[in-house]
Amino acid sequence: MILGIDIGGANTKVASHDGRTVELHYVPLWKNTRLPGALLDIAKRLKPEKVGVVITGELADCFPDKETGISYIVDAVNDAFSDAYFLDSSGVFTKEKKRELSAANWMASALFVGKDYKDCIFMDIGSTTTDIIPIKDGIPHAGRTDFERLKNSELVYSGALRTNIAAILGTVKLNCAACRTSSELFAITADAYLVLGMISGEEYTCETPDGAGKTMLDAKRRLARVVCADLTEIGEEELFSIAHQVMEKLVKCITDALREVAKRHDITRVVACGLGEFLVKRAAEELGFDIVLLSEKYGKEISKVFPAYAVARLLDGRG
Amino acid sequence: MILGIDIGGANTKVASHDGRTVELHYVPLWKNTRLPGALLDIAKRLKPEKVGVVITGELADCFPDKETGISYIVDAVNDAFSDAYFLDSSGVFTKEKKRELSAANWMASALFVGKDYKDCIFMDIGSTTTDIIPIKDGIPHAGRTDFERLKNSELVYSGALRTNIAAILGTVKLNCAACRTSSELFAITADAYLVLGMISGEEYTCETPDGAGKTMLDAKRRLARVVCADLTEIGEEELFSIAHQVMEKLVKCITDALREVAKRHDITRVVACGLGEFLVKRAAEELGFDIVLLSEKYGKEISKVFPAYAVARLLDGRG
Repeated sequence: MILGIDIGGANTKVASHDGRTVELHYVPLWKNTRLPGALLDIAKRLKPEKVGVVITGELADCFPDKETGISYIVDAVNDAFSDAYFLDSSGVFTKEKKRELSAANWMASALFVGKDYKDCIFMDIGSTTTDIIPIKDGIPHAGRTDFERLKNSELVYSGALRTNIAAILGTVKLNCAACRTSSELFAITADAYLVLGMISGEEYTCETPDGAGKTMLDAKRRLARVVCADLTEIGEEELFSIAHQVMEKLVKCITDALREVAKRHDITRVVACGLGEFLVKRAAEELGFDIVLLSEKYGKEISKVFPAYAVARLLDGRG
Repeated sequence: MILGIDIGGANTKVASHDGRTVELHYVPLWKNTRLPGALLDIAKRLKPEKVGVVITGELADCFPDKETGISYIVDAVNDAFSDAYFLDSSGVFTKEKKRELSAANWMASALFVGKDYKDCIFMDIGSTTTDIIPIKDGIPHAGRTDFERLKNSELVYSGALRTNIAAILGTVKLNCAACRTSSELFAITADAYLVLGMISGEEYTCETPDGAGKTMLDAKRRLARVVCADLTEIGEEELFSIAHQVMEKLVKCITDALREVAKRHDITRVVACGLGEFLVKRAAEELGFDIVLLSEKYGKEISKVFPAYAVARLLDGRG
């Protein structure tokens, strides 16, 4: 079996080339050094013949720079697996440890998607970020670093779970008046979607900002704190309104970015994956674009770990 | 000696009524339970006759609601000091444990300032937040809860040290083009002011987001990460530009809020304190308002812990 692994700053995602194995592990690199152990455990349990790896976790701020991050992650992979291939940001597999392994997970997805959908914009909304990758004739055309992609609107650093609501909403409207928000990490997008009923407690796969639970009540408490209130000070309707405004602002953000990228490359078809697929759908509809949901083609679970699945398929296809 | 104590979520500030004792302790309530020990230590060292206390730390997300927070903090104070008086949000001293003790530190400052400057707007920019309190005939007229004050623009939840830059800047301009920012807690306002040379490493009195040091190089590394870059990818000039844009945006934010509050109450004089006094000065100049700097009247150290000093003076004045 060939295994694909996508090592991000917050999550390590795993998928086999046949799609039978799909795993998502919350391994926050900036908090601890559980990664080597987590990889060893995966190696022992799944015993893959070879592994394809994509890396984005080098940006985590436990590393002074990206080279150090790449080096640490590559070593952890090679300690766990005897035959590992790393995809670089130009889409080439290598066994070499080099800076160009940075931020390459979207390249695996886009190359793989490009085989089936020649001209399209590939979008992946994960827990933390949104990739918006233009593909022409099967070739991905995005910037080669996160910094470049931020400038090109090919990366929106907001996602469906982990994003601090303070980074999305500077003010909220409550009963037609504007209310400023707190800049603390009091609530995240997962809290908004939980309150809106769009994700379940089980789909809330990251830590809560306050270390409390993942029930509706916990999430409401966190949302209230965004305007420095507790649940005695703010009504149900206002809480739903805050959650709704989080979603609307995020949809607007990714719609603006999609519009810009689409116009630059003259493409009007979107191919979407990730646990935030439902948000991409909203953005594509807003712009009147065609949309293909990879969850419908490959199943919801694979859609959520798509870069891992894609890198396994690419490595398998290389033969 | 009468001691004033201002117990916030991040800092516990201490000042004696004669201004001879001034202390600032970083005691992040949401991270641990060091508060009781810190207060016991203060009691043992300073042996005050009585203490005046103002509280804002009840909002910290280790507490499920404000009542729980108030209760915990009041107990910690009473365990450490035999004769403690708490100022409530209507400006009355009490020994009672009650919800109205929430978010009352600005009331101490504003009542005290109101004695000298009858009509003015009192502004305190601390590490985390900015208070903008209208005072008429010596009486403070702000909302009685943080939630009310956020709606009234009397509280801007941004400060001179701890504020996540992602909550201030959704995009930055680099070489005339917009670049989106990361929504992680990669850098804080203290990093921007350190890079701009406006605060020293010693004045950076909170933790760094990445746990690294407080040198210029460390701060630059953190600022670079705001656009997902490391120091090999971004130039000196761009880093200074990011830091400068953080300051400009913050000044704009507080200027907008000050303009609104000033207009509502028809006041054009500002009395400012806090470690972010230099930002208030910019805002007042922008609007052509008169400004009094409390650091010039009472000294820089007292200005930074003004609510603690004010509550000590108020308690002393009560006789």
